[in-house]
Amino acid sequence: MKIVLDGMGGDNAPFEIVKGAVEASKETEYQICIVGKEDQIKAELENYKYDPEKIKIVHAEEVITNEDSPVKAIKRKKESSMVKGLTMVKEGEGDLFVSAGNTGALVVGSRMILGRINGIDRPALASIYPVLGEKACLLVDAGASSEAKPHNLLEYGTMGSIYVEKVLGRPQPKVGLVNLGVEEGKGTTVTKAAFKQLSQAPINFIGNVEAREVPAGACDVIVCDGFVGNVILKLTEGLAWSILKLLKKKFLDGLKAKIGALFLKDKLGELKNEFDYSEYGGAPILGVEGPVVKMHGSSNAKAVKNTILKGIPYAQEGVVDIIKNAITDLEEIIASEQ
Amino acid sequence: MKIVLDGMGGDNAPFEIVKGAVEASKETEYQICIVGKEDQIKAELENYKYDPEKIKIVHAEEVITNEDSPVKAIKRKKESSMVKGLTMVKEGEGDLFVSAGNTGALVVGSRMILGRINGIDRPALASIYPVLGEKACLLVDAGASSEAKPHNLLEYGTMGSIYVEKVLGRPQPKVGLVNLGVEEGKGTTVTKAAFKQLSQAPINFIGNVEAREVPAGACDVIVCDGFVGNVILKLTEGLAWSILKLLKKKFLDGLKAKIGALFLKDKLGELKNEFDYSEYGGAPILGVEGPVVKMHGSSNAKAVKNTILKGIPYAQEGVVDIIKNAITDLEEIIASEQ
Repeated sequence: MKIVLDGMGGDNAPFEIVKGAVEASKETEYQICIVGKEDQIKAELENYKYDPEKIKIVHAEEVITNEDSPVKAIKRKKESSMVKGLTMVKEGEGDLFVSAGNTGALVVGSRMILGRINGIDRPALASIYPVLGEKACLLVDAGASSEAKPHNLLEYGTMGSIYVEKVLGRPQPKVGLVNLGVEEGKGTTVTKAAFKQLSQAPINFIGNVEAREVPAGACDVIVCDGFVGNVILKLTEGLAWSILKLLKKKFLDGLKAKIGALFLKDKLGELKNEFDYSEYGGAPILGVEGPVVKMHGSSNAKAVKNTILKGIPYAQEGVVDIIKNAITDLEEIIASEQ
Repeated sequence: MKIVLDGMGGDNAPFEIVKGAVEASKETEYQICIVGKEDQIKAELENYKYDPEKIKIVHAEEVITNEDSPVKAIKRKKESSMVKGLTMVKEGEGDLFVSAGNTGALVVGSRMILGRINGIDRPALASIYPVLGEKACLLVDAGASSEAKPHNLLEYGTMGSIYVEKVLGRPQPKVGLVNLGVEEGKGTTVTKAAFKQLSQAPINFIGNVEAREVPAGACDVIVCDGFVGNVILKLTEGLAWSILKLLKKKFLDGLKAKIGALFLKDKLGELKNEFDYSEYGGAPILGVEGPVVKMHGSSNAKAVKNTILKGIPYAQEGVVDIIKNAITDLEEIIASEQ
């Protein structure tokens, strides 16, 4: 198996990317192939001890930046590390593509270069969602599409369930649909129809979940359209940040508070770590003809290492093929609804 | 002016409702008319000293519960405290209706009994949203409708702006549209069209806001459809609860932490209070022919008192008439878009 890594994607490329690759390489038998500007990557690699048989470089002249428009970038920057990396997976020269680059371009590129799995209408971006003090869960769709039809939500739930089972190693993952209330009749025309379709899918669908229950770990797979997914992820980030900021302010307000905060220093550090969910790995793109994992743009070496290592089962367990095999069931459900 | 209070709505009725009314009555010159089961309300009132000229009872035989289906309840329970209270406002026997009862029934009842303001397509429920350590803002729609067309979002933004200015007393409130990104071209077909319409409205529209910015107080009026509004409110509640629970657990873990927590006891209490936003008053229903304010089902006497007192300007400032006057502007914007 060969892992293809976008050497130029993200805020800290290539420095942290290369460092993370070297660290990952010590913990896996597989070869890691870093795609990007050869001179820069070579220069970074010289700072480390590594097995040259296990880390290779593939030169790519161009870089897709966060400012690039996704579709244009994929169409025009043929020599970019992202396009070249995806093409390697497409052509069987790699088994997994990992990138910290432009999210939109990675989603579009996966769809255009690898192609949609036949029968999947909308590939999705799935994101790890933190459940404080517990196992994280998977949110699908995290924003690959802003709107969704009922059968898209059915696809999201099914693909998410397969991923959580095979990659996160959690059997019979609980799949929940974000909705206004737990009762079946609740929600929009889309969520009502999606509830019916998800109920018939060969997954452990637990029904509607209210947003209130999501941070407490109501389910392993959170299903929602990309707009709502974006709101859930960003609001969580913003609110956690606001609360931590307020805590800090309160805990520095007066001598008594400062003494207390000193005693609690370790615990406050732990609290911050609860929101560092890089240890769970990156965000897979589901529904395309090859395993692709997105990592956060600001990933450091540790996050790069974790994303690579935790992403391996996406390729190794044949998740793409399992999704393909599930299509027939989904098509029957969708047909029976129309 | 006469305030009409639903004596039977909410989890703590009539006990906390009556207590709150008595407390509010000491701080306002207006008469409060409690609608509900006369014997029960009378019995509660006997526990307090109050001015019998300022607190009156109107008997209502029936009660709409949270288990009642909204439309059926409003149509069939003609003798309920909610239907009777709304009818009093409709007939000019009251100027403001305040209830802690079934939210769906209150929204439906306001629409059916008071009627929509001519030209407003969808009345909305507006909810106070906490901004930690700062002034709270207003979220419209908090769930009166699960779906919204662009012109509904235009209505929400305009009505919310008027309410924040006149009732919360904040001039030129900043109105933001919840969207996937700040750029104009972002979002769904609905949010894109709503952006254009809101840009033309006679309000201080600051453009798109990402969910990440909402808890930090990006704007005074948060505009979104009722589904997204529900997600924002409930996720905030759930996440704050999860974080506080985790804090508590961490701060009780080990002697050192316990000592620290002891020093920080006051501060932790303050933190909890940040999420008690009953001091900002209840959630107004906007776009109907009379001022109606919903308070939380679990409201205690303090929340009841605050909702009544903070709700007075909704009636006193003539917010319903100001919304009516704004309709012409909105109609022109909507017409020009079609």
